[in-house]
Amino acid sequence: MREDHVETNVRAIIKAEVRKSRKTGEKKAASKGQQTRAAVVEEALRIASAEGLAAVTIGRLASELKMSKSGLFAHFRSKEALELETVALARTVFAAQVLIPAEATQPGLENLWNLCHFWLEHIEERVFRGAYFFAGAFFERARQGGAVGREIRRAVRECRDALQSAVKEAQKRKQLDREADAKQIAFDLNGLLLGVYWAHLMGQWGALGQARDKVLERLRVLATEEVPAKALRSVRAFRRYLKGKHA
Amino acid sequence: MREDHVETNVRAIIKAEVRKSRKTGEKKAASKGQQTRAAVVEEALRIASAEGLAAVTIGRLASELKMSKSGLFAHFRSKEALELETVALARTVFAAQVLIPAEATQPGLENLWNLCHFWLEHIEERVFRGAYFFAGAFFERARQGGAVGREIRRAVRECRDALQSAVKEAQKRKQLDREADAKQIAFDLNGLLLGVYWAHLMGQWGALGQARDKVLERLRVLATEEVPAKALRSVRAFRRYLKGKHA
Repeated sequence: MREDHVETNVRAIIKAEVRKSRKTGEKKAASKGQQTRAAVVEEALRIASAEGLAAVTIGRLASELKMSKSGLFAHFRSKEALELETVALARTVFAAQVLIPAEATQPGLENLWNLCHFWLEHIEERVFRGAYFFAGAFFERARQGGAVGREIRRAVRECRDALQSAVKEAQKRKQLDREADAKQIAFDLNGLLLGVYWAHLMGQWGALGQARDKVLERLRVLATEEVPAKALRSVRAFRRYLKGKHA
Repeated sequence: MREDHVETNVRAIIKAEVRKSRKTGEKKAASKGQQTRAAVVEEALRIASAEGLAAVTIGRLASELKMSKSGLFAHFRSKEALELETVALARTVFAAQVLIPAEATQPGLENLWNLCHFWLEHIEERVFRGAYFFAGAFFERARQGGAVGREIRRAVRECRDALQSAVKEAQKRKQLDREADAKQIAFDLNGLLLGVYWAHLMGQWGALGQARDKVLERLRVLATEEVPAKALRSVRAFRRYLKGKHA
């Protein structure tokens, strides 16, 4: 049941992405070949996010998709090409679930909060089967040269950059202490999210539930008098405050 | 050069472990079969810590070690058996490098400090090729059932339990605030280490260099008056303090 839900999620995101790219001018329908290719990459991500990128092989895909190995080779000439597209799809899914919706909210503090909030939500909703795709892939491959390692680092950097820009914008808007090091704050928030996720995977009860309180705790120390003290009292109050500012 | 160094490290640890097991009564020399088996697992860990556990296959090992597939099958009847021994070796290496030396220091605050210190050192010295083995493997496999997922969770739990016991002991010795939640502190320190490691892999200059300052920063908030304020002023002062206590 859980897995169905997850796959539906990814599929819905991919469909939305496809719709978007159609809207932006690419009117012609996907060819049979493109459809097959997309289905293969989707299956590859399904395997990779549960068992690791190394588990994605032409042989495994052929057996899962009931295709011939030679048919698959026609689409992907090398294991690297297949891995690259798998990472690219994971990046798209992550962007659609976390980065893009956060960016659509008010710049500064609200954007920063929502980056953390949507990141946590994408864990809670288990958008990727298994664990957070980029945590496993990153810790495993970050040291590697080559196109795949580069692509993984790029995806992870996008997330860090988004956090860092949001902090800088919040400083510019005088919501957060301008003396504080934006890079350091982004790095701390990222560490906090990773730690929470780790505790959650370890089965620590309440780890995800307390995560937003912990994010707020960090922001409380950095907030200026621009943000009323009572807004920082609880996650609920903070959300109400953000909503009010936006209205 | 770097990789040679790393492999020498792992090899030295394994040899030390073997010496230890001999001392504890297992006097007979390893048979040829045992030696081969050990060499295979060592190679499997070398591959796994650079490319992920899924990259360890009988075929890959046969080609790296110039052995026949059937010869390898004689040692490991299944992929699962091979993965299990690989994780077990990683656990031994991690224990020998981090948990055991930390436990050999004074219980309480010194033990807690050294758990963090040796953890960081094992990253700095690149004991595992690629990234920290259990970060990649854990984020990738923690959700999985079966013996391999269980073994990985067990290894990660050992590290968390060591942190938590050290905090509790430091509270018992009145070095840290007894009102604070030991589990929470262990979880925060772990998150801090993961975050530092992530930043380091992202190429953030100074991430590892500042890590011990960040650990001390957390301990400063929790320390009781039992620990003199000047000992908490800098990492250097803190180390001097710990050394003095031990002498």
